[in-house]
Amino acid sequence: MINTAVIGVGYWGPNWVRNFAAHPEIDIKMVCDRQKERLAKIHPLYPYVTLTQDLNDVVTDGSIELVAICTPVHTHFEIASQCIRAGKHVLIEKPMTASVQEAEELLELAEKHGVHIFVDHTFIFTGAVRKIKTLLTAGEIGDLYYLDSVRVNLGLFQHDVNVIWDLAPHDVSVLNHLIPSQPEGVITTGADHLGDGKADMAYITLFYPSNLIAHIHVNWLSPVKIRQMLVAGSKKMVVWDDNQPSEKIRVYDKGIEVIRTPDDIYHTLIQYRTGDMYAPKIDTTEALSVETQHVVDVLKGKAKPLVDGRRGLDVVRILEAAQASLHQRGKEIPL
Amino acid sequence: MINTAVIGVGYWGPNWVRNFAAHPEIDIKMVCDRQKERLAKIHPLYPYVTLTQDLNDVVTDGSIELVAICTPVHTHFEIASQCIRAGKHVLIEKPMTASVQEAEELLELAEKHGVHIFVDHTFIFTGAVRKIKTLLTAGEIGDLYYLDSVRVNLGLFQHDVNVIWDLAPHDVSVLNHLIPSQPEGVITTGADHLGDGKADMAYITLFYPSNLIAHIHVNWLSPVKIRQMLVAGSKKMVVWDDNQPSEKIRVYDKGIEVIRTPDDIYHTLIQYRTGDMYAPKIDTTEALSVETQHVVDVLKGKAKPLVDGRRGLDVVRILEAAQASLHQRGKEIPL
Amino acid sequence: MINTAVIGVGYWGPNWVRNFAAHPEIDIKMVCDRQKERLAKIHPLYPYVTLTQDLNDVVTDGSIELVAICTPVHTHFEIASQCIRAGKHVLIEKPMTASVQEAEELLELAEKHGVHIFVDHTFIFTGAVRKIKTLLTAGEIGDLYYLDSVRVNLGLFQHDVNVIWDLAPHDVSVLNHLIPSQPEGVITTGADHLGDGKADMAYITLFYPSNLIAHIHVNWLSPVKIRQMLVAGSKKMVVWDDNQPSEKIRVYDKGIEVIRTPDDIYHTLIQYRTGDMYAPKIDTTEALSVETQHVVDVLKGKAKPLVDGRRGLDVVRILEAAQASLHQRGKEIPL
Amino acid sequence: MINTAVIGVGYWGPNWVRNFAAHPEIDIKMVCDRQKERLAKIHPLYPYVTLTQDLNDVVTDGSIELVAICTPVHTHFEIASQCIRAGKHVLIEKPMTASVQEAEELLELAEKHGVHIFVDHTFIFTGAVRKIKTLLTAGEIGDLYYLDSVRVNLGLFQHDVNVIWDLAPHDVSVLNHLIPSQPEGVITTGADHLGDGKADMAYITLFYPSNLIAHIHVNWLSPVKIRQMLVAGSKKMVVWDDNQPSEKIRVYDKGIEVIRTPDDIYHTLIQYRTGDMYAPKIDTTEALSVETQHVVDVLKGKAKPLVDGRRGLDVVRILEAAQASLHQRGKEIPL
Repeated sequence: MINTAVIGVGYWGPNWVRNFAAHPEIDIKMVCDRQKERLAKIHPLYPYVTLTQDLNDVVTDGSIELVAICTPVHTHFEIASQCIRAGKHVLIEKPMTASVQEAEELLELAEKHGVHIFVDHTFIFTGAVRKIKTLLTAGEIGDLYYLDSVRVNLGLFQHDVNVIWDLAPHDVSVLNHLIPSQPEGVITTGADHLGDGKADMAYITLFYPSNLIAHIHVNWLSPVKIRQMLVAGSKKMVVWDDNQPSEKIRVYDKGIEVIRTPDDIYHTLIQYRTGDMYAPKIDTTEALSVETQHVVDVLKGKAKPLVDGRRGLDVVRILEAAQASLHQRGKEIPL
Repeated sequence: MINTAVIGVGYWGPNWVRNFAAHPEIDIKMVCDRQKERLAKIHPLYPYVTLTQDLNDVVTDGSIELVAICTPVHTHFEIASQCIRAGKHVLIEKPMTASVQEAEELLELAEKHGVHIFVDHTFIFTGAVRKIKTLLTAGEIGDLYYLDSVRVNLGLFQHDVNVIWDLAPHDVSVLNHLIPSQPEGVITTGADHLGDGKADMAYITLFYPSNLIAHIHVNWLSPVKIRQMLVAGSKKMVVWDDNQPSEKIRVYDKGIEVIRTPDDIYHTLIQYRTGDMYAPKIDTTEALSVETQHVVDVLKGKAKPLVDGRRGLDVVRILEAAQASLHQRGKEIPL
Repeated sequence: MINTAVIGVGYWGPNWVRNFAAHPEIDIKMVCDRQKERLAKIHPLYPYVTLTQDLNDVVTDGSIELVAICTPVHTHFEIASQCIRAGKHVLIEKPMTASVQEAEELLELAEKHGVHIFVDHTFIFTGAVRKIKTLLTAGEIGDLYYLDSVRVNLGLFQHDVNVIWDLAPHDVSVLNHLIPSQPEGVITTGADHLGDGKADMAYITLFYPSNLIAHIHVNWLSPVKIRQMLVAGSKKMVVWDDNQPSEKIRVYDKGIEVIRTPDDIYHTLIQYRTGDMYAPKIDTTEALSVETQHVVDVLKGKAKPLVDGRRGLDVVRILEAAQASLHQRGKEIPL
Repeated sequence: MINTAVIGVGYWGPNWVRNFAAHPEIDIKMVCDRQKERLAKIHPLYPYVTLTQDLNDVVTDGSIELVAICTPVHTHFEIASQCIRAGKHVLIEKPMTASVQEAEELLELAEKHGVHIFVDHTFIFTGAVRKIKTLLTAGEIGDLYYLDSVRVNLGLFQHDVNVIWDLAPHDVSVLNHLIPSQPEGVITTGADHLGDGKADMAYITLFYPSNLIAHIHVNWLSPVKIRQMLVAGSKKMVVWDDNQPSEKIRVYDKGIEVIRTPDDIYHTLIQYRTGDMYAPKIDTTEALSVETQHVVDVLKGKAKPLVDGRRGLDVVRILEAAQASLHQRGKEIPL
C-alpha cells in the first residue's frame, strides 16, 4: 500500500481524495487544509482519514510517501519543497509552479532527494487525448500542419492569476503531449477589461519547426462555452469537441494534395480530398482514475512517468513566455 | 433608369447581373468577360444584354453610368481607373485593390472625376450584420470588449492571393462597420503548408483604443466549416453563427460587473450576470438586393454611401498591414 | 424535525438519502435494503443512520413519520400499505404502483389513516417544467394544440417492466401537470424485438378534448439519445431539449392565424407568424431539492401537494391503458 | 433525343424544365401551365421552348414522347390519362394520384398503351437514401428492427390536401424503397387545429412482418424543422439527418445482443454494444439529375424502372389507408 496525503481540498483536491480512497493499492491517510469548513466536508465521507490544518503534520509523518498538492499556484513551490525535503513524492496541481525558476529549483531538489514529481495535467489521461495520441503515433494523421485550441466561457475570474495561467495549462500540456517537437517561440495578444492588470482573454501562437503552428484562444468573457481543438495533418484532420456528451473525437478523411509537374514548375495543382468521417469509440474511464493507476505504476517501477517535473516545467516555461509576450504587446518571446 | 454594365462573370459577377436585371430602376446593358464560355452562359438568361470580350466596349459606351467590376483583385485598379476616367461610377468587388497605394490613387481619381466608388462588402447588407449594428447603436450591447471572428473551412485555395486577402476582407469590413473607432495596430501570425509562399491560415489581432481588441482566424485547411463571430460588450454579448439556417444571431444577457468599494480599494468584487438569451428575427432579404437598392439610393441622392472608396481603402490598409505583420512573423504594424 | 426513512438504495434511493440528509428540517433516521452491499455504501457517508435489511424495523419505528419507497414497482403496493397502516406518510418512486387497482387501494388506505401519499414525479420540480408551466398559466402560449415528447436512447432494458412503464411515467406525469384537461382515450403501437414479450419501443397517442393531442415516443433501441418535448399553442410554441447543457427551453413566437371573411365562407386565409425566439433563464436548483422542500411544506401545512396519490393514480391509469392498447395492437382504450 | 414536355410550372415543375434542358439526350419542347405569369418566367430562361396554356397542345403533339406532370394531385389522373392515351410516357409528381382507384386505372391504361409511368419520388435518388440502401443490401445493418421518420416544420398549409398527402409521400416512398417486405396494416392518429377538416399533424404506424415497425410523424405546426430518420437493425443503426449540410448519414455500431443459456431458460442476458460511429461520404449530385438520367436509361432499355406506376400505387395505397385510419380515430386498416 502507498500511504498518501492531500493538501488543499477546495475545488479539485476532493477528487484526489476520492480517487486515492478508491484505489486498492493506496491508503489515504491525511487531508490538510487551512479552512476548517473544508475539512468538515471531508470527514463524513472518509471518517478514517486524519484531518489537519497544519501542513507540518503532513511533512513530519514519516509513513506518508506521496502528497497531492491542490493549493493555489503561488503556494506550490513552498509546500512541494517541504514535502520533497521530507523525502516524499509529490503530485502537484497544474500549473506546477508560478515561475520557471521555481520549477527548476523543484526539479533539482527532487533529483537530490530521489523522489518523483508528478504534475496533474489531467487531460493527458482522458480517453479523447489518448485516442488522438494513438492516431498520431500510428501515422494516421500524417505530418502535423497545425493545432488550434479554443477554451472559452463566462468566468470564473481568478483572483491570483490571469486567464493564461488559469486556462492555458490545459491546452499547453495537451500540445506538448501531442507534438513531438518543441516550440521555438510564442506570441500572445490579449486584453484586460476590468482594469486590474490581469488579462481576461488571450490569443497565443506557438511556432514549431517545419511550419507547424499552434494557436490557443483562452477567454473568461465568452457568452458561450467552447472547448474545441482542431488537429490538422497531411493525411487526416481531427476535431475534438469536449462539450459533446458522446462522439467527442471526429476524424475527417479530408485534406489537400499538391501536385507539381516537372515540366511546369510555375504551376501547382491542388487537389481536395473529402472522404468519410468517423468518431472512434473512446474510453470513458474517469481521467483521474487512469492517472491514479499511472502514478501507482510509476511508484512500483512498472511504468515511466508521462507527466513528470520536466513536463511540468515545459508547460510553465511556455506560460511564462506567453505572459511575457502579452505584456510586451505581442512581441515574440523565444523558447 | 440607371444604365449599368458588369465586368467579370466568373463566380460572383452573375449575382450582380441578376440583381441589376431584377431592379426596376436599373438597366443592365452590357456584360464583359474575356472568356467566351462565361458570356455564353449569360446569354440565354438575359438575351437582351450586349455581350463583349473587350473592356473598351464598356469604357467607351457613354450611356453606361455604373460599372460593377468582378474581376481578380490585381486587375481592379486598372479596370476601375479606366471606368472612372470615362466618368462612370464603379462598384468594385472586395477587396477594393491589391494595395493601399492603388486604393488611394483610385480615391483621388474618383474625386477628380466626380464619381462614386462603391466597394462590395456584401456582409454589411445582410440581415445579421444590420441587426448587430442596430443593437450596438441602440446601446443594448454596451461598451465593446472584443470581437472574435472565425472563418474556416476546407479550400478553395486561391492562385493569386493568400488566405488573408481571400477571406479576411469579409471580417475586416464587418469589424470596420461595427466598431466606431479605428484600429491602432495589427499583429498577424500564420503558416504556409504548401510551401508556395502563400499563407493558408492566419490569426489576426487588431488593437483598438480603450482595451478593445478584435481577432480574426481565417483558414483554408479546416476539416469543418465555421463562420462565427462573438461580439462582447459590457451589457450583452452576441453570437453570430452564419452557418445556422435560422437564429443566426443570439443575444445573451450575460456579463460581469466589477464592484469597487471606496473603503477597500485593494479588492474588487466580480459579479456574474446570466439572464435570458434571445434570437431576434432578422431580415432574410438577399444582401445583394439590399445593396443594389442602396446603390440606387446613393446615385439618386437619397442616401449617403455606406461602403464608399474610403471604406474600401480602410479594409485594404488593414489587409496590407496584416500581411506585412505575417511576413515579419507577427511584428506589430501600426495603422 | 421530520423523521424519515428510505427503503431501497439501489439506483435512485441514495439521492433521497442525500436530500433528506441535507435538509435542515429533516432527520434521516433509517435506511433499509435487502442487499447488504448497498447498505455498506451508505454507511461511510451517513454513519449516524441506522441500517437494516428488515422492512419491519422501519414499519415498527414509531418515530418515523415519512418513508421514501425506492424499490422495484411490483413491491410498491405491499411496502406502502404496511407503512401507511403504521400511520406513516409515504413518498413513492414513480410509477406509484403496478396497477390501477393497487393505486386505488392505497389511496383509500391513506385516506383512512390520514396520511399523505407523495409520488416522486421528479420532472415536475425541474426548472424547465416549472418554466413551461409558468408560461402556460400566464397565457403566453395560448390554447394548447399538441404536446409531442420523444424519450429515446440505447437501453437500459429492464427485467420487470416494458419501455412504457420504464420511461413513459416521466412524460405522462409532465403532460398531466401541464395540460388542464384529462385525456379521453389512448392508442399505443410498438414492438418487442427480443421476443420476451416486453415492448422495447412504443408510440403513445393521447386524445384530449378540443382537438388537443399528445404523443409520446419511448424507445430503448435508439442509437442516439433524444429528450425533446414540443409544446405548441395558438400563440407561441416551446421546444424543451433536456439534453442541452443550457438553454433547455426555447420559446418561439411562431404560429399560424386563420382569417375567415364573412363574404367568402369557402376560403380561409392562413397567415404565418415568425418572430423572435428566446431562451428564458431557468432555475438550475436540483429538482429533488425543490421536491424535498415541497414535501416539508406540505407536511407543515404550508402548501398543497402537487403530486399526491391521486396524481400518481392518474399516471398509472394512463400507463395501464397504454399497455392494454399496445397488447391489442393499437385499439383505442377509453380513459 | 427524347422529346419532352412539362405540365405545371408552379413550385416544382421548373426544376424538371431545368433538368430536362440540361440533359444531353433530352429535348424540352413544350411547357404548359394555365397561368400566364408562370409561363412568362420560363420564357427568358428557355426562349426556345414552346409555351402553351392549353393541355391539348401537349397531348396532340405527336413528337412528344415523355410528359412530366407537376400539377395539383387531384388533376394527375385526368392529365396522365390523356397523355397515356396519346401514347406518351408520363412522369408524375408524387403522390401519383388522389386515390388507389385512380392509380390502378392509370396502371391498366399504361399497360394497354405500352407506355411507362414514372413517379417522381425524388428522395429515392438522393445520395443519402442510395447510401442507406447500399448499407442495407450489403447486410451491414442486419435485420431491420424499426424505421422512425420525423418530418415537421411550420407550414406550408395546403389548400387541397391534408398533411399526410402533402408530406408523408416522401417518407412512405423511402420506407417502401428500403424495406423488402410489405406493410400489413396502418394506424394513424392526428389532429386538425384549424377546424377545416384537414389534419395538420399525423402519427402513422406501419406494421410489417417479423416485428418490423415503421413510424412517421408529419406536422405543419412545428416551431422547428426536423427531417430525421432512424433506421435500426440488429447489427447497426443509422441516423439520417437531412437538415445537416454535411454528414447527413451517421452509422452507429450500436446494438444489443440477447444471450440465452440452455440451463436457465427463465433469464436472458442482454449485452450492449457501443462501437465507432462513421459518416460515410455521400454523393451530392442533385437527386433530380440522377433521376433524369435514370428515366433516360429506362426509356433506352438500359435500366429497369426504380419507381414505376406500381411503386406509385403502393404509396397511394398506404396514404389512403393512413387517412382512413385517421378518420376512424386510429382504427387499424389492413393493407
